[in-house]
Amino acid sequence: MKLAEIYMQFQSDITIIEKELEDTVKARNDVLQEAATQLLKAGGKRIRPVFVLLAAKFGHYDINGLKHIAVPLELIHMASLVHDDVIDDADLRRGKKTIKSQWDNRVAMYTGDFIFGKAVETSTFFTEPKIHQILSNAMLEMCLGEIEQIRDQYNWGQNFRVYLRRIKRKTALLIAVSCELGALAANADKEVQRNLYQFGYNVGMSFQITDDVLDFVGTEEQLGKPAGGDLRQGNVTLPALYAMHHDESIQMAITKMLASNYPEDVDISPILKAVKASGGIEYSISISDLYLEKAYEALERLPDQQEKTYLREIAAYIGKRKF
Amino acid sequence: MKLAEIYMQFQSDITIIEKELEDTVKARNDVLQEAATQLLKAGGKRIRPVFVLLAAKFGHYDINGLKHIAVPLELIHMASLVHDDVIDDADLRRGKKTIKSQWDNRVAMYTGDFIFGKAVETSTFFTEPKIHQILSNAMLEMCLGEIEQIRDQYNWGQNFRVYLRRIKRKTALLIAVSCELGALAANADKEVQRNLYQFGYNVGMSFQITDDVLDFVGTEEQLGKPAGGDLRQGNVTLPALYAMHHDESIQMAITKMLASNYPEDVDISPILKAVKASGGIEYSISISDLYLEKAYEALERLPDQQEKTYLREIAAYIGKRKF
Repeated sequence: MKLAEIYMQFQSDITIIEKELEDTVKARNDVLQEAATQLLKAGGKRIRPVFVLLAAKFGHYDINGLKHIAVPLELIHMASLVHDDVIDDADLRRGKKTIKSQWDNRVAMYTGDFIFGKAVETSTFFTEPKIHQILSNAMLEMCLGEIEQIRDQYNWGQNFRVYLRRIKRKTALLIAVSCELGALAANADKEVQRNLYQFGYNVGMSFQITDDVLDFVGTEEQLGKPAGGDLRQGNVTLPALYAMHHDESIQMAITKMLASNYPEDVDISPILKAVKASGGIEYSISISDLYLEKAYEALERLPDQQEKTYLREIAAYIGKRKF
Repeated sequence: MKLAEIYMQFQSDITIIEKELEDTVKARNDVLQEAATQLLKAGGKRIRPVFVLLAAKFGHYDINGLKHIAVPLELIHMASLVHDDVIDDADLRRGKKTIKSQWDNRVAMYTGDFIFGKAVETSTFFTEPKIHQILSNAMLEMCLGEIEQIRDQYNWGQNFRVYLRRIKRKTALLIAVSCELGALAANADKEVQRNLYQFGYNVGMSFQITDDVLDFVGTEEQLGKPAGGDLRQGNVTLPALYAMHHDESIQMAITKMLASNYPEDVDISPILKAVKASGGIEYSISISDLYLEKAYEALERLPDQQEKTYLREIAAYIGKRKF
């Protein structure tokens, strides 16, 4: 079954969520309204809402409640993208101009704050403290991940553990929590909730590692931005980390680049080539695959339902995607 | 009764809140921990927590519940200060170096995000959706206020209504909500909640107008930063607004300054002098006093209790303060 077919199965509920997202970011302020609407139109695969819906199928599925979980999760993701753009000096995301490049950093910061606030407001639908605790904890961990990324920028001495913890906080946790909360909101078994969390966590890790690989091997057309952007911004990801630990000359080249006064102006194509030659890409793919295997194992422990196949399809798509 | 004596009356509960604030911002991340702790030590009068406590005295006062309202309100206030510093290019706040000037803008943004997240996390203690709705709405309105401030920056054509709406969102609402939530968490009468909200709103308006006046008339020593900072940053506040509407030459001088390529380098002392000469200061003080009167009227509608006197004292202090 293809990914598009899975989305088709949930089309009407995804439409409800999309409408809810639109209504949610409606603001009485022109600047904000325009910024948020652009962000919404830039789209994305709405992976987190889809995971919420699929996870809820293991309990009592009711879209009227679920949308109040799916929407805040997508909003938290969107807000983090907006704040990420403030940081990353990224002028292009998904090939479209970012809020920051069109307005400015300060508007982007408050647009992100506003979207965070809307996420909190939407989730007030639920009275269970556990749901709010899980959501706010995910927000907090994402902040920690971002601050760690700043701290570790231009630091070639970091180890693999630091990298893995950072991507857990930045990416994997919100996907884990999407699966968990879908099940929790649908009153699924505790055991099911746990396994879905595990599934989401491992898919999220695989997803981010794949993302980091694509930043090395993708073309500008595929990525919507030039390759090597992470390295150029001083973000040391798994392929570079592997290369540096296995080849001293790469370590010296990267260190030299990172130590430059204008690292963003350095021609990094020799470094990209060297990282590829080091085997860092293959290594990273193998680690991504390991996480994907763990995700499949978590799925095995779930009750036998059609949705297990869907979740496996999406996981494979996310972990194996080529762009 | 002096302000210090009122604080003395609540000393043990303020200490509990202070301890809770400290515990709350404890993070496993060095950068964040240091940033948050500095922010906490920079202090402040903890006006919002004090209003929570005083308001709760009109219902069933229990510090164990109240601290979960007082702490998030103070955290939201702190987070907004951190993000405000990112915007304002303010190197000094209360005479101490801001997080931004010591670290950088990006760390400041995520520290603010983290503190917002902690505010949400702390408030999960309560199950009533109304409390969460009021809190998230206050956060959203503050974002709108900040975005409006950016939009209105260097815009000398704005009118009084735009100014008043902006300070309502930026400042008055959170103080209103502190009073309201203190009463709500203590299960006070609906009518009492409403009057306390009205009291807080009017005190907050008076507070911000006084703040804007002090930025014109205060000395660098009193303010902890040079006078005229608002104008230098393009923030048109009530005294300047009045002066521009009543004296065309001031309007031209300010417009010329705002239109300069480097408005922050312009010597604004002649403009400060002209605003003072226009009567803009006296006018602003009279508006601040009007709000203060309305705050007193709201107090009159409350049941006769000792705390009415305390609230009146604090309101007078806030609205009439000279630094």
